[in-house]
Formats: sequence, structure tokens, C-alpha cells
Amino acid sequence: MSDRARALYDGAIVIDGLNVSNWDSPAVYASLQKGRITAISATLATWEGFQETMDAVAGWLRRFREREDIVQVKSTEDIRKAKRSGRTGVILSFQNASPIENDLDRLALFHALGVKVIQLTYHERNLLGNGCFERRDDGLSNFGVDAVREMNRLGILIDLSHVGDRTTLEAIEVSEKPVTVTHANARAFYDHPRNKQDEALKRLAAKGGVVGTTPFCNFLPKRFESTLEDYIDAVDDMVQRVGIDHVAVGTDNTQDQPLSFWRYITSQQGTGYPSTFSDTSMDYLNLSFQPKGLEGPHEFPNLAEALLNRGYSDEDTVKILGGNWMRIFEEVWQPAIEWATRPRDSTHE
Amino acid sequence: MSDRARALYDGAIVIDGLNVSNWDSPAVYASLQKGRITAISATLATWEGFQETMDAVAGWLRRFREREDIVQVKSTEDIRKAKRSGRTGVILSFQNASPIENDLDRLALFHALGVKVIQLTYHERNLLGNGCFERRDDGLSNFGVDAVREMNRLGILIDLSHVGDRTTLEAIEVSEKPVTVTHANARAFYDHPRNKQDEALKRLAAKGGVVGTTPFCNFLPKRFESTLEDYIDAVDDMVQRVGIDHVAVGTDNTQDQPLSFWRYITSQQGTGYPSTFSDTSMDYLNLSFQPKGLEGPHEFPNLAEALLNRGYSDEDTVKILGGNWMRIFEEVWQPAIEWATRPRDSTHE
Repeated sequence: MSDRARALYDGAIVIDGLNVSNWDSPAVYASLQKGRITAISATLATWEGFQETMDAVAGWLRRFREREDIVQVKSTEDIRKAKRSGRTGVILSFQNASPIENDLDRLALFHALGVKVIQLTYHERNLLGNGCFERRDDGLSNFGVDAVREMNRLGILIDLSHVGDRTTLEAIEVSEKPVTVTHANARAFYDHPRNKQDEALKRLAAKGGVVGTTPFCNFLPKRFESTLEDYIDAVDDMVQRVGIDHVAVGTDNTQDQPLSFWRYITSQQGTGYPSTFSDTSMDYLNLSFQPKGLEGPHEFPNLAEALLNRGYSDEDTVKILGGNWMRIFEEVWQPAIEWATRPRDSTHE
Repeated sequence: MSDRARALYDGAIVIDGLNVSNWDSPAVYASLQKGRITAISATLATWEGFQETMDAVAGWLRRFREREDIVQVKSTEDIRKAKRSGRTGVILSFQNASPIENDLDRLALFHALGVKVIQLTYHERNLLGNGCFERRDDGLSNFGVDAVREMNRLGILIDLSHVGDRTTLEAIEVSEKPVTVTHANARAFYDHPRNKQDEALKRLAAKGGVVGTTPFCNFLPKRFESTLEDYIDAVDDMVQRVGIDHVAVGTDNTQDQPLSFWRYITSQQGTGYPSTFSDTSMDYLNLSFQPKGLEGPHEFPNLAEALLNRGYSDEDTVKILGGNWMRIFEEVWQPAIEWATRPRDSTHE
């Protein structure tokens, strides 16, 4: 690695916008330390309901007590502190709004416990809207509109990665704060339901949003043959589409996840039964879902070098590595003073 | 009352296709006995989830043990036995699929406990489809299609009363067995989101379905000024639209329900918070939701006389009072032998 890349990486705040690894595996934390990752957004829930997710939060509070190498992130200042202390900051996040079940008050409850990013839907339908594998392209429900407003009010960042196209567009429109796609690429770059339409990407960027381009190989053109350079192609492509200030990284890393995890996340509503979108032929345990050269957090320094080699300036490389995440976190996580005392509004146009 | 009406009523199986009274009120049972109601479909759940609904089932099992005047209905033979013994048969039913939460296997669980009628959605969105007060007109989800198939397989009657228009049409189309609207009138008769479109009524009847016309005053043209004769107008109207073999009665009776009940059922997703469709100006405790002359089960004999006076034959009156409900229960509650061993099919066209 070049001295320039090493020096830049040493000084940079490096953030993975989506990590869904097996949190009970010690190797996961070792890999984060080896890669000197400043912060990750860690998935607590995909299909889970209220009680299971509360138990998952409790599990994280225990980890924060017991582990020296991680620290909970509730603000951008916490991320800066993590950088200074050499720890990895952990942002608690959901890939589904299912944990709130039918009650918007639970958004404030989870927020009080430090849940800072919530994806509206996961794969299929929920009470808010539709996921990207639903049989049709519905938008936000009454409850979904109110949920977006409540997340705006509280300062929870809205993630639209697995969200259906129409729900995605409507959430961008309804949200009064910037929103994110933590882990997806452009559908025009590689045609997959999990990659996002140009219209959504442009509108999201126009409102100050950030897209975490993903090295998850299923969403890259060469799929399981992809390398770090192929991923940089996806980053380049996204910079062309939405501009350098709106591009970041979300690995969708699944380190040490067992087969039961894959069956769960690809099942119908989390029941374990296959759904229409389940690819039961996929050999999850023997496929490489992260590209050669960026197979895990431990190889993140390679990312800095590859971006510099591709011609990105120091400043732009730092934006992609974590600077853009810091900007949107700063903007969204601050609850607006005037909103904090506003009664919840459930009227719709 | 005429001797003809009395004799006919004495011999008839009389069924109320939807009763949502306060089951802890002794007066409710006294009223059912006084009206010599053969059977009612009793609502266990509107917004409730799995555990609350299981508790509600347990509450009914206790009532069946403790009360002499009621008996659980699991078959049409149970209804005939109730008639012979002078008891009121109680059909356990849901007004929402919310009790199964995300798991289709819970349909078989509730069915094993005697839940024989399930309405797909209630007012707003759920995992299956949309309710009639949603901000838009979506249809069935992947999960919703599979739920319809599973209810077909088990022999659970599908109710579409509070269901959104598109979800209603799709459920009629997907279902391999006749479906019902237990408590609504024609929207062309009185324009209200809770009354049903002609297209839905005609398709439902064409597949052997039954519509429980409702005397619930909010869904009648004169609303809270309605009388029994105004309700017979709604019955007449429905007979014209769908034919005598497809018309029955569903009162939506709310006897002895407290204000908390009204707030709950009209709230957003059952949280108690008003939703877009909540009419907070309505004085629920001082309005008469059942028409003069048919204010409760105790006045049901008046219904026989009013139908005969309107010119219905004995045979047709008996169909409306309960015969049509018996026919569809008989047809749907029998699980098809060939389906019982069929593995659950989660593939969609």
C-alpha cells in the first residue's frame, strides 16, 4: 500500500453503512479492529417483531458493557470519539420497521435506546409500505406516512435499500429530512430488484441524501466473480449519477452467518418458509458475497488505495470512506427543536 | 306479529353474520335468548395480535364451559343442534388477519380452536392487503395470496366487509371457495367506503358468495334516523343486485360496548391514536347504531314479519334469516380432501 493511502486511511473516519454479521462471532470484532473501522451500522432486526428486537437491543447493551473494542454511537461526536480511542463505533439499526409492530410510539422507545437508522420495509409488505420483492409496486400507507413524519421528528435516519420502488419515491417525497440507501447500487448499472432506479437516486440526492454503494456481489454485474476493482466501478457509476457528495459505502457484510440466517432472511415474512423471491438453489455458505480484495472489514484499507488509484482526490476519497455518512448523520440525527414539541400529526393530504 | 311470521320464525335457523357486542355483558346473552337467535358470528379480534387473540379464545372457552345458553359452533350440525336445544351457537371469528401476525401456520392453529371466519383486513393496511380506509387502493400481497389459499385449504370462510376495493376483488378472484361480506350494503345504494362496489358484489355472488346486509345505521341512507323498514330497503336492494340466494343478515351489533371500544376500533392500527378515518366528533354512546324496530337480537322476530310483509315468500325469508349462511358455511367449512394433504404452495403467477 502506498504511503499516501496509508496516511489518508489513518486519518479518515471510515464508516460501513450496513453490516449484518453474526454478532456472536468473536472473529467479527477482530476483523473490524484489524481494518480500523471507525463505525458500522449494525443490523438488529430484519423480520423480527417488538419483543425479539428488544432482546436484541439488550444483547447489544451487554456487548457494550463487556467488550473493550466497541462503543455505542448515538451522535457524530461518538463516532469522533471512537476514532480517537481506536474503538469501532456501533450504530444500532433496523432493516425493517417490523419491530414497532402497529405502534408509532415504539419509534421513540427504540430511539431512546439508540436506534438511529431504520429501513422502512424488508423484501415484502409491512404496515408501512412494500419491499422490493413484493408482487406489486405499492406505496406508503397511512401508517407509513405517519411513521416517516415521526422518524423525521425524532431524528431517525430513514433507509430505503430493500424498499419497493413506489414506497421509495414516496418516502423521499414525504420526508422533511434527507434519507439514505445504505446498501445498493444503481439498477441501470446492474439490473436487480435490490438496486435502485435512477429516478429514486436522483431525487434522493437532490434532497441531500446519501447512497451506500455496495460490494455485495449479488448486486454487481460479475456477481460472485467480482473483485475490488469491479466494486470501484459501481462507486464510480454512482458518483456519475448522483455526485461525489452523495456516495458512501455499505458492505452488507454477512461475516460468519450460518445457513439458518440465510433461510430466515430469504423466507416469507421471516417464517422460514420460502417465498416467491427465495432462491433455494443458492449455496449461501460456499459463495463469496464480498469481492476479492475487499472480503471483509480487515481489507478496508485496500478501498482507500483503490479509490486513490482510480483518480479520486484525497478529499473525495475521505467523503466516500465516511465523510458523507458523517454529514447526513449530523443533519438527520439532530431532532429539530420546533418539532420536538409538536403534537403528532396524523392528517394526510 | 302475525301467526305466519311467528310460525316461520319458530322453525327457522336464524343467524347473525356479524356481532361485535361486549361479551362480558350478561345483557348481551339475555338479548340473544330473547330473540331466539340460533347462531351468531362473534368478533374476537379487530386490531389484536397473536397473544391477545389467544387470550380472547381462552375467554370464550371459559364462557362455553360456564354458560348454559351458548354453545360453540364448529360445523353446520352444531348450528342445527343449537336450534334444537334452544341455545345460541357462537361462531368464533376475526375482523382482521392481524392475530396470525407474520405466520400462516397460525391459521391452522386458530382453526383448530374453532375460528371459522376471518376478515382479511380491517380499516387500514395489514400484511395481507388493504382496508377500506387506506389512502390508496392496493391489492393482495404475496403473503395475502398465500393466506387466501391456506384459508381455502383449511376451510376458513373469508370475510371481505372492511376490506379495500382492490383487495376485495383480488381475494374473490384468488379464492377457490366462495367468500363472504358479513356486514355491508351496496355502495350504489348508499355511498360509504364501508359499503361494497357493484363489481365486487356481482363477482362474489357469481362464485357462490353471500352478503350479510347490515342494519348498522352508519351504512344506511337515513343513518341514525333509520328504521327496520329502511333496513328492509337495503335487503331488497341487495336481492335485486345479487339474487335471493346470496343475501343474509349481519347486524354489526355493538351492544353494551364502552367508549374505549369505539376509540380502539376507529384508531390507527389499534393504537388508540386517531387515524385519517377517525370521526372524533361522533357521539358513540348516544347514537343508535341499530335501527328502530331492530335495535338488538331481541327484536329479530320483527325481521321475519317485515320481510313477509314486504312480499318475500316463506322460503325466501328463511334464506335471508339464516338459510344462505348455512349453505355457504356447509360449502366452505368442509376442508377439501385433496387439499388437506397438499403441501403449502407459495409460488405465484
